[in-house]
Amino acid sequence: MADGASVAGRQSAVQEKRIEGLTMLIFSGDLDKALSAFIVANGAAAMDIPVTLFFTFWGVNIMRREGQVQLLEKKTFMESMFGWMMPKGPNKLVLSNMNMGGMGTLMLKKEMAKKNVYSLPKLIEEAREQGVRLVICTMTMDIMGIKKEELMPGVEFGGVTTFVSTANEGNMTLFI
Amino acid sequence: MADGASVAGRQSAVQEKRIEGLTMLIFSGDLDKALSAFIVANGAAAMDIPVTLFFTFWGVNIMRREGQVQLLEKKTFMESMFGWMMPKGPNKLVLSNMNMGGMGTLMLKKEMAKKNVYSLPKLIEEAREQGVRLVICTMTMDIMGIKKEELMPGVEFGGVTTFVSTANEGNMTLFI
Amino acid sequence: MADGASVAGRQSAVQEKRIEGLTMLIFSGDLDKALSAFIVANGAAAMDIPVTLFFTFWGVNIMRREGQVQLLEKKTFMESMFGWMMPKGPNKLVLSNMNMGGMGTLMLKKEMAKKNVYSLPKLIEEAREQGVRLVICTMTMDIMGIKKEELMPGVEFGGVTTFVSTANEGNMTLFI
Repeated sequence: MADGASVAGRQSAVQEKRIEGLTMLIFSGDLDKALSAFIVANGAAAMDIPVTLFFTFWGVNIMRREGQVQLLEKKTFMESMFGWMMPKGPNKLVLSNMNMGGMGTLMLKKEMAKKNVYSLPKLIEEAREQGVRLVICTMTMDIMGIKKEELMPGVEFGGVTTFVSTANEGNMTLFI
Repeated sequence: MADGASVAGRQSAVQEKRIEGLTMLIFSGDLDKALSAFIVANGAAAMDIPVTLFFTFWGVNIMRREGQVQLLEKKTFMESMFGWMMPKGPNKLVLSNMNMGGMGTLMLKKEMAKKNVYSLPKLIEEAREQGVRLVICTMTMDIMGIKKEELMPGVEFGGVTTFVSTANEGNMTLFI
Repeated sequence: MADGASVAGRQSAVQEKRIEGLTMLIFSGDLDKALSAFIVANGAAAMDIPVTLFFTFWGVNIMRREGQVQLLEKKTFMESMFGWMMPKGPNKLVLSNMNMGGMGTLMLKKEMAKKNVYSLPKLIEEAREQGVRLVICTMTMDIMGIKKEELMPGVEFGGVTTFVSTANEGNMTLFI
């Protein structure tokens, strides 16, 4: 019985370790969805749950640096077009809903500040401090012509296998 | 060997209990997404799976009461603005797609009625009867100025920790 | 101890089998979301993870056949309307974002071809070859009047119970 119990103990420890983890596939580049993603990520990280955010498609825009960046390699015309048309970082994102030419987005930001809710740039900073893994989809970078030097520091780069294997080690997955 | 077997038995019982549960983060206030969420929730509940719906951002509008509500506390101007602009309950929601000024939404509702599919208010009622937990995000309520008395009866209130800890006890998570 | 070890071995094999599986609820009929869904599905299938895609609502349009189909049963006027208004298969889908009257969608398709990323029809073919289960929501078919002969070959048909029971056997769930 002692043996059995110790097996159970080890087993449950293994299991506990194995099935705890939150992995999000951040597809959207909308401000409201990004806020939700980071609030949940930071909440889970504060509960000591391993969290990975995998940014793909429009979601990659959340992690772009602001301002001009000196590129190591010239972009094609199409790649430059994508770059110009898409929002450059967290301060440029707008709401998925009720944006109303920016007025809705402004209203929300004001209310958030007034009610002491962190802004998106602050939430990203907090996520990094709490050890949330931030992984950028290299296929998206390739298709849209986004270069590593255009992205915020401290991010990792990975493909679909990175996403799936991380998700597979956890117990919670969200597509945002 | 008998010991081993009984350990395995207990283990698997523990595991079975631990990893069954569906938790949805309802971010969207679109009619079509709300319908999907409640149809899946009711289906899972009918299979005796614990289900929790956590309403955040636009999703909170799904759970607003219709008509005028006597507020215990006055809203600020901005809060009133949010209240006016956002849909008030399940009958006011529209499709995320092909709404066409309301015509698409009307068409869908008619077809659903004709094909004997429950309407959203009925699906919500069914969810409640089946013991689906309905939790409203307090941070959203705070930012948008939504008061408890404006929401349907029988809901709970919680923050990000409520969502994450519930999700962590289950095996299925959806962001809708 | 030997017994204990073998129990642990069997246990972990059981568990391994039980909690590996990716189930996606494909609600959206947007090209960009469909691409993400199939890229993740194919990636997971290549890692020998069982994958099921359950198409509901607008997502069913992804799996419609192109061109005219001889129907076994006449559609009502409303059902024909739905059929005309919704995209017919993977080549007709557009981006959820930056579609710009089709220009954005065209730009993305060109860049994908140039960077050797599979098109959506090819990704669907690959999914089928890899044994990804493709299940069409029968309730959506009923509401929208979509007939079996209008859908691609090799798909299965199922309801909410099919989705929930498949999801419940896996460890990863996404709503797309």
